[in-house]
Order: sequence, then structure tokens, then C-alpha cells
Amino acid sequence: MTQAIKRPAFFISDHTGITSELVGRALLAQFAGVEFHPVLLPFIDSPEKARSALDTINQAFLKYAQRPVVFSTLVQAETRAVIAEANALVLDLFALLSGPLKTELGIAPAGATGLAHGIGNQFAYQRRIDAVNFTLDHDDGSKTSNLKSADVILVGASRVGKTPTCLYLALQHGVRAANYPLTPEDFDDARLPDAITPYRAKLFGLTISPERLHQIRTERQPGSEYAALENCRHEVLQSERLFREEGIVFLDTTTQSIEEIAATIIHRLKLRRHAR
Amino acid sequence: MTQAIKRPAFFISDHTGITSELVGRALLAQFAGVEFHPVLLPFIDSPEKARSALDTINQAFLKYAQRPVVFSTLVQAETRAVIAEANALVLDLFALLSGPLKTELGIAPAGATGLAHGIGNQFAYQRRIDAVNFTLDHDDGSKTSNLKSADVILVGASRVGKTPTCLYLALQHGVRAANYPLTPEDFDDARLPDAITPYRAKLFGLTISPERLHQIRTERQPGSEYAALENCRHEVLQSERLFREEGIVFLDTTTQSIEEIAATIIHRLKLRRHAR
Repeated sequence: MTQAIKRPAFFISDHTGITSELVGRALLAQFAGVEFHPVLLPFIDSPEKARSALDTINQAFLKYAQRPVVFSTLVQAETRAVIAEANALVLDLFALLSGPLKTELGIAPAGATGLAHGIGNQFAYQRRIDAVNFTLDHDDGSKTSNLKSADVILVGASRVGKTPTCLYLALQHGVRAANYPLTPEDFDDARLPDAITPYRAKLFGLTISPERLHQIRTERQPGSEYAALENCRHEVLQSERLFREEGIVFLDTTTQSIEEIAATIIHRLKLRRHAR
Repeated sequence: MTQAIKRPAFFISDHTGITSELVGRALLAQFAGVEFHPVLLPFIDSPEKARSALDTINQAFLKYAQRPVVFSTLVQAETRAVIAEANALVLDLFALLSGPLKTELGIAPAGATGLAHGIGNQFAYQRRIDAVNFTLDHDDGSKTSNLKSADVILVGASRVGKTPTCLYLALQHGVRAANYPLTPEDFDDARLPDAITPYRAKLFGLTISPERLHQIRTERQPGSEYAALENCRHEVLQSERLFREEGIVFLDTTTQSIEEIAATIIHRLKLRRHAR
């Protein structure tokens, strides 16, 4: 059995490395035939650290006998010059993008580090933290007194993904996202819980395949009536029926990531985001 | 008074738009002299939607009398061809980066959408969701029975930023992040709470300026002893002293975003991430 030869891939940044890694991983995903060995090199904010990163990259070249691919969001001229010397394909995003922008805008870029993922706009940042607190206070119907100040209220059966989605909406986008569970009693009544009926326009439904729900619930409460496939089928069917009857937009989360679910909710409800 | 002329900026994507917006905002932040009007155009996954996006971009050109800047992560040849016709500076990331990669790797990119922010690696994705549940279960010292399976335990006074940082670590990186508050009683004893002493190697301290802590606590409990500047000074001083005496790595969060705090914790403690 031969081992697949991996190609080293580096995401290098003078700060958190978030942008560098996202771009790099998105691009590499397009080349499915190659196996990569990804390494994040964050906080490379001095020529000294850049030289140490250069060593790491060059050593990977020797170890893997494959030219590494380097995604760089470095903005300082000195550190970029160091990394440019690597025995690697260096994709220097700042160079590739800021050149055309400089020409278009007629001014030079600052070349300053830490602008992308710092606190930035203090108002928007505070709004994100406040939204996280709001979401924690309004998780799983725990507090309904202040639902009127929610931007969105996610509804659905237990374990369809309401909580992680709410937290993501709050943390990333400053959206005040509450969530409210639909329970077997609501399905018997075949109507929305009283607590949320005044906020119909803010409701967004989540659903999931009964098989996946059964799997998730089984991990939490194996062998329970709650986790039984038949019960999951019933709850999914009833919640989707409720969404349709009440005219609530809803989304099947079975094959969707939190990022995708959140982007879809924002897009469909035209929610205002509070970006950095 | 003349109004500043804004330059329209579009972040266009065939999927969530996360990468497109991050890259775009990072680059635009380097041109501080220009005011931009940012617009996200996600889910542009057909030539029809691309033509509608093209209209939007061209209308912005007319409205603002400024050529828009377009950051595109579109990967489909058809949609990219449509957007290339815009009266705008189109920065086509896929074209700029996949060309050199294709040459280096000797294979063609897939050109498939939704690879970057989908569920992707099911194991890593499940790990993120599990980490969120773990973090919610172990927020603010609420449950200490299972601290041994935490990857990191954030410690610090109330309202230094433990909870949002833990949630970010869990959601984005699949890190099982617990947090444990330091209270006035712990400062009187001048030692770590018993519940966390067995896990010294996993502890990471957060601190903040007393003025900022006073401001944050005042928003929650105005006029209280808890929020008083003098009390905040005392708690900050005592927690930093405790960190030093106990040899706990710590970070001042006063001017740091959650993204920065999380990246620093991962970097310093060499935590294993579970990326997409």
C-alpha cells in the first residue's frame, strides 16, 4: 500500500489568518484530486517571524518533496519580500488585489496589519456581543418577555439546529436571534405556541430529515421515545405542516452547514447584519 | 455641507458570500481614504441570477457616478462571464488564484459551487456542533463534572469576554471550550477555585482594563457595587496577580476582538482545530 503524497499548503497572515485560511481552503477544495497538508501560520508580523515561517515552508518542501502552496495575506512589504523567496508557489493576495485597486482608486493602500479582524467599528462589534447575550437569554424559549426585540425567531422541533444557528447569527452578524421549540403539545393543538404568535413576521422554521433527527437524538438519549424514528417522523411531518399552514418560511437543514443556514435566513428575511 | 461620495463595493458569490466579503472588507480597509457602500450578493448560482446582479452593479454605477469595485468568488464560467461585463473593477478571485494553482498542480479546478462553506468534512462539522453543546453546558462554571474533556478552560472575572470567546472557539474551530468565573471569594483566598486546579495546563486567563470592565458592567447593573470602578480595579488586579502566581498564560482583551482573542488562544496553547 503506497501512501498518498500530500502537498503542503500554508495559510500565512500577519494577524489571525482567518481570511488567508478561508481563501486558501476555498481554492484548494476546487482541486479535489490533490491531498493537501494544511498549516496555519498566523501573527507573522515582523521580518524575524517571516524568516522563521520561511524556514518552516522550505523544510516542508524537503520533507514532502512537493513544492508547497502558500496563501498569503501579509500586507507589510518587508514580510512579503521574505516569503516571496520560499521554494513554493506563493499566492500573495495583497499583491494580486491591491494593485488593480490602487490604480482604480488613485490612492496607495495603507499596508497596515490587523485591519480586517480587529474590533474595527466599535458600534458593530458591541452589537455582536449584545446579540450573543440576547441569544443566550432567549435560547430554547427560556425567556419570552423580550421576544419583540428579536430580529428573528427560529422555530422547529428539538435538535433541528436552532441553537447553533442562532449563536452563529449573533456572533458573526450581530443578529438578535431567539429560538423557540415546537413540542408534541404544539403538534396536538396544530397551532403555533401562544408566546410566538405575535411575532409571525420574524419567524423562520427549521426542519430536517426524520432519519437524521433520529440519529442526532439517539446520540443524546439512546433508546428513548424522544429519539425513536417513528416519533421523529411524526414531529418533522407535523412541524412542516404547521409551517405551511401558518405561512412560515422554512428550510431543511439536513445537508446544510450553519454558515449556509445563516446565510439563507439573512438572505430570505432580508435581515440587517452588523458586520465588522 | 457636502456629502462624502461613496464608492459602491460588491461582494459576489455563488454561495454564502463569506469568503468574498472577508477578502473584500480586508482589502478595502487598506484604503482608509475612500468611503465605500458595501453590498453582499450571495447565492448567485445561475446565469439568470448573474444577469440580475449585473443590473444591480450597473445601476450602482449610475446612482453613485463612481465605478463600483466587485470582489467575486464565483467559480462557474457562465456566471463569471456575465459579471465580467459590469461597468466596474471586477476582482475575480477564482481567475486570479486558480490559474497559477492549475499550472502548479497540473490539474484543472472543478469549478463546482458550495465547496467552501458546506458541511464538507462530516466529522469536523459534527465536532463543531458537539463543541457548541459542550460550551453551552460548561458556561460560567455551570457544570464542572466533565471539565476533564475540555480542550481549554477560560478563567477570569465576570464580563471579561469568556462566554463569547468560548462560543467562537467552539463554532468556528470545534474547540471544546469551557469557562470558569473568578469571584471575589477566590480573590480573598488568593488561589484558584478547587474545581479547576486539576486542569492547570488547560487554563487560559482573560483580563481587561478596569475602565472598560466598569463600562461593560454598568450597562448590565448600573450603580451597583459589582460595576463600581473601584471594585473593577480590585478584581482586575487580583485576577492578574493570581494568573502570575499560578503561572497561567493570560491575555488583555480590552482592544481585542473575539476573532483575535480566539486566534491568540489557539496559537499560544497550540490547540487542535477542527476546520471545515
